[in-house]
Amino acid sequence: MADSLTTSLFQELEGLVLIDPHSHINPHAAASKTLADLMGYHYYTELAHSAGLPKDQIEGPEISPKEKVGRLVEKLTDLDNTIQVSWLLEMCREFFGFTDDRITAANWEALYDTAEKKMAQPDWEQQVLRHSKIEKVFLTNDFDDPLTGFDTNVYVPCLRTDDLVFHFGRQAVRDRLQKATDVDVSDAVTLRNALGKLFAHFTGKGARACAISLPPTFCPKKVDAGAASAVIKRAAKGQTLTLAEEGLLSAYVFWTLAEFCAEYKLPFDLMIGVNRRVYECGVYQGQDLYDTRVSLIQYRDVLNAFPQVTFPISVLTHMSNQELVSYSWIFPNVVTNGHWWYSNTPTYIEQDTRSRLEAVPRNKQIGYYSDMYKLEFALPKFRMYRRILARVLATEFVQHRGWSEEQALSLGRQVLRGNVESVFKIS
Amino acid sequence: MADSLTTSLFQELEGLVLIDPHSHINPHAAASKTLADLMGYHYYTELAHSAGLPKDQIEGPEISPKEKVGRLVEKLTDLDNTIQVSWLLEMCREFFGFTDDRITAANWEALYDTAEKKMAQPDWEQQVLRHSKIEKVFLTNDFDDPLTGFDTNVYVPCLRTDDLVFHFGRQAVRDRLQKATDVDVSDAVTLRNALGKLFAHFTGKGARACAISLPPTFCPKKVDAGAASAVIKRAAKGQTLTLAEEGLLSAYVFWTLAEFCAEYKLPFDLMIGVNRRVYECGVYQGQDLYDTRVSLIQYRDVLNAFPQVTFPISVLTHMSNQELVSYSWIFPNVVTNGHWWYSNTPTYIEQDTRSRLEAVPRNKQIGYYSDMYKLEFALPKFRMYRRILARVLATEFVQHRGWSEEQALSLGRQVLRGNVESVFKIS
Amino acid sequence: MADSLTTSLFQELEGLVLIDPHSHINPHAAASKTLADLMGYHYYTELAHSAGLPKDQIEGPEISPKEKVGRLVEKLTDLDNTIQVSWLLEMCREFFGFTDDRITAANWEALYDTAEKKMAQPDWEQQVLRHSKIEKVFLTNDFDDPLTGFDTNVYVPCLRTDDLVFHFGRQAVRDRLQKATDVDVSDAVTLRNALGKLFAHFTGKGARACAISLPPTFCPKKVDAGAASAVIKRAAKGQTLTLAEEGLLSAYVFWTLAEFCAEYKLPFDLMIGVNRRVYECGVYQGQDLYDTRVSLIQYRDVLNAFPQVTFPISVLTHMSNQELVSYSWIFPNVVTNGHWWYSNTPTYIEQDTRSRLEAVPRNKQIGYYSDMYKLEFALPKFRMYRRILARVLATEFVQHRGWSEEQALSLGRQVLRGNVESVFKIS
Repeated sequence: MADSLTTSLFQELEGLVLIDPHSHINPHAAASKTLADLMGYHYYTELAHSAGLPKDQIEGPEISPKEKVGRLVEKLTDLDNTIQVSWLLEMCREFFGFTDDRITAANWEALYDTAEKKMAQPDWEQQVLRHSKIEKVFLTNDFDDPLTGFDTNVYVPCLRTDDLVFHFGRQAVRDRLQKATDVDVSDAVTLRNALGKLFAHFTGKGARACAISLPPTFCPKKVDAGAASAVIKRAAKGQTLTLAEEGLLSAYVFWTLAEFCAEYKLPFDLMIGVNRRVYECGVYQGQDLYDTRVSLIQYRDVLNAFPQVTFPISVLTHMSNQELVSYSWIFPNVVTNGHWWYSNTPTYIEQDTRSRLEAVPRNKQIGYYSDMYKLEFALPKFRMYRRILARVLATEFVQHRGWSEEQALSLGRQVLRGNVESVFKIS
Repeated sequence: MADSLTTSLFQELEGLVLIDPHSHINPHAAASKTLADLMGYHYYTELAHSAGLPKDQIEGPEISPKEKVGRLVEKLTDLDNTIQVSWLLEMCREFFGFTDDRITAANWEALYDTAEKKMAQPDWEQQVLRHSKIEKVFLTNDFDDPLTGFDTNVYVPCLRTDDLVFHFGRQAVRDRLQKATDVDVSDAVTLRNALGKLFAHFTGKGARACAISLPPTFCPKKVDAGAASAVIKRAAKGQTLTLAEEGLLSAYVFWTLAEFCAEYKLPFDLMIGVNRRVYECGVYQGQDLYDTRVSLIQYRDVLNAFPQVTFPISVLTHMSNQELVSYSWIFPNVVTNGHWWYSNTPTYIEQDTRSRLEAVPRNKQIGYYSDMYKLEFALPKFRMYRRILARVLATEFVQHRGWSEEQALSLGRQVLRGNVESVFKIS
Repeated sequence: MADSLTTSLFQELEGLVLIDPHSHINPHAAASKTLADLMGYHYYTELAHSAGLPKDQIEGPEISPKEKVGRLVEKLTDLDNTIQVSWLLEMCREFFGFTDDRITAANWEALYDTAEKKMAQPDWEQQVLRHSKIEKVFLTNDFDDPLTGFDTNVYVPCLRTDDLVFHFGRQAVRDRLQKATDVDVSDAVTLRNALGKLFAHFTGKGARACAISLPPTFCPKKVDAGAASAVIKRAAKGQTLTLAEEGLLSAYVFWTLAEFCAEYKLPFDLMIGVNRRVYECGVYQGQDLYDTRVSLIQYRDVLNAFPQVTFPISVLTHMSNQELVSYSWIFPNVVTNGHWWYSNTPTYIEQDTRSRLEAVPRNKQIGYYSDMYKLEFALPKFRMYRRILARVLATEFVQHRGWSEEQALSLGRQVLRGNVESVFKIS
């Protein structure tokens, strides 16, 4: 009974057209050209590398897309248990009519060619969006992105701010900021001016969020503008900052971003917990890990200081999920946001979803985002989530709490779509 | 099959009359007068506030109980997914014959009036106790509570000691202590005398536990009495203490309380992990949160030093539950105690219950307490727990381990009632 | 349907003959002589002690094996809920034809006598291995173990190095090292020579792993050999080391062991997270606990420095499991290894197994080891794991992901046996 109920709920949820509130899509090349665009996703390269494939076999300009896929396919037998490879199979089935159980040395070339042909169709991008039931996709834009040449109504700009907060000490970052804003940053006032220009530019182009990923050690504090000015001056002159100065500068920029989020009424997506470059010899984008010893108590000051800013928060690990539940339950300006990266696997999604649905106000939960780099991934990733959501709704709400199927569906629709609209003010 | 088995176990467990080993009941006004007493519970005000209801709409002396309920009802549509609102519905169904799916703008007034009438019946308190199958309720008494004017056989006194351990530096606390004990506290000796008088008073009135809630940073240590004396003297003169002095004083008082627990053979309930006033603009009792980075290793010294004192331990988060399981499995004087606050939701209760039942001696587990402020909450809260307990017993013990239904029930009865009697020495 | 599928998978997995990749078996007395050898396992003594049995009732040379069992049996009624007691029952059923529900005061003596008779059979050890379907058992050998007098093809040596890393400051340890290697250790060079001799000796005898258990605070770092030399010299002279010197010495020895693992191509089993002697009055082997605040980020340097060394990692708690999953998913040289000690109970095994199977390459997961002290424990412990593995394969892979039963079984066989062979190079 649970099974037929789950299936029925899943099918209803599958019918829903979605807005994807976080991705890394390049709007100028949103869909894939070959299977290498799919299998080059860091999940496959890092898992294959972890399973024993040398990095130089899959990274390097001399490796053609087809060669790369061929080499990765050989490693798939060691990875077919992973949920990530199940996404790959699901894409191949849905988009390319693939019918085998596994992608193997014997069948991959035919699949590659079929995929290449389909992906070459002029309306491939539209086909993928339509077939995946995706209406809009939020982007992750560099702060100096001109945001031109694409339909911002479909590909919604978001101001990503990691570079500003953590790498202002780098000449290249300061140059990009100068070029993007035409402001010579030399102290706190000019830095604020430059940041303000970015917000004006982004919101003018329809941006719907400011976003940042943060290391487990980060603890936002309000910093004295005078003290910040002194450090900014040193940075602007190209002087090397001490760790303490870097920390002060990061804190100042972060706090200023929050102030602009308040001014421009922009939600501030916080993605908390990542340590960069932990495995230095890892493949591209496969080097980051974390330290579970992080707490939302570190965000106490900023959450109290900006009641008018909505903070959709993603946490990197299941161990932080209960804090996210509790902080969202208490703070009006905290919203739970999706299932990020290392927590984006069924075991953790299921438990985190259950705990959120039973304790956080239903209007404060953004169920899922794809985090994808290529458009084809929305389908299997959202489908994985919809399956789990259907299961939780069937078991916890219909069976254990006696809700009607329609009531459960209404909750499902709200976390899948409704709250994305209300939190990010999409009409 | 699991379902009919679970139902059968649940019904048996529902028949059990219970002792509630921890609540915040005011024995002089144990039951509610209006629906506002139920919906004024911080779970509803804080969730409604979190979902967007301004604090001044629900807090303030000028708001009548009926107005307050009306305003909260409007927000219930955003909260109906929460387990806390399911408690509210269950109370309305059980006590007031409410039959609708949801409490809405259209039906709440009739419900309010019905409830008010029932609650006005002279034996309402007795009706609630009887209907909820609750025989005794443990209280949380201020250290200066005279403990008079109520039946201590039904409402069992417990000495709550947060003020003594953490706020002795406040004049008001010292004044209350002076008044309650007639001891002028000016050093370690007189402080010990005063505390001893409290224990004599409380145990004389039938107290069954000493209790305290503790922040994640607290780490009990034995403190030199001379050093403590110096600080107590300064505090007694109204001098401002440094953080280090406050810490030393807290440690001294806590350790002395443990010594009196040994002397008076009183269990010492430790509720570990809460940070107070994290969200300073939150509603009344809706401001506290936590930091998961806490460990029972912090209690190593005190657990070793007091083998003769039983410590029923509650942890605030699921992340601390495995430590609680392991420490109870090893230390004879550690007992698992209920599912506290932010962990008192089905997802966490279920996993924590499973892990305890499979690894902690069965005579060392107190299944549940209500933590309630008003008597009506015992029914839905204990029922939630009984449902989950029935499910775990059915799945893990009867199905997976081949126990008979009666063996499983016997385990259920022991954690629900038997251990409350043995741990707190209730005959 | 799930149930019959689970049963079917379980029965297939039960047929598999295994290699146990970690135990504390004494190869000179691998099997038990009396029931006291089974019930003297620290799980039973510590649980009985925790439930109220005084330590002096079960520890002491004057207590005969039969007396000890009689006293422990009286406490079993408080422990029969634990998974550990279910192992005991399962052994009694499988090996001694025990048919009652529980071991009680009324039936234990007959059981004791039956067991004693069976255990006295000359081929008892072989019977146990055969009946338990265990082909090889990895040992935990002291560094100065001569490794003679037993069949190293069945009982596979492993070099356990806790004493070297953490207790080199003790005279007894240095004496043992001198005796085992014939090297007078007086500085970094001679210490390296001595350690090298141990590796030569162990690998010469067929050792398949180097192993160590580590406290939550340990953070391996490469240490300057000169600095290490100075400390080693002081230690060799019997001078008391400061905490800082001890830390430096531990780091130096650990790093040198990793270098020899590279040279001798030996996997380095890391068992991370235990605090020794937390409960000082506990029974033998029942004094250790932990602090969940530990992270694999502490191993960042060593994992990066030794890409050629395989690190099968065990974590003590469920709270560390997600890190283990993520680090194994990224680092080619990290392998998930079993379910250790306080996490070796069904609730945690099930969730940890699920999360590993869905996110770690299938060739990098060692499903289970027994950690046993007596051979009879392999059967119930591995059976517990096989049951859970069958359940996870049935639910997650066959039901949710549409795998065939044979595909699921193949994954089960790989984590149960295949990866033990490939990781530890057993042909």
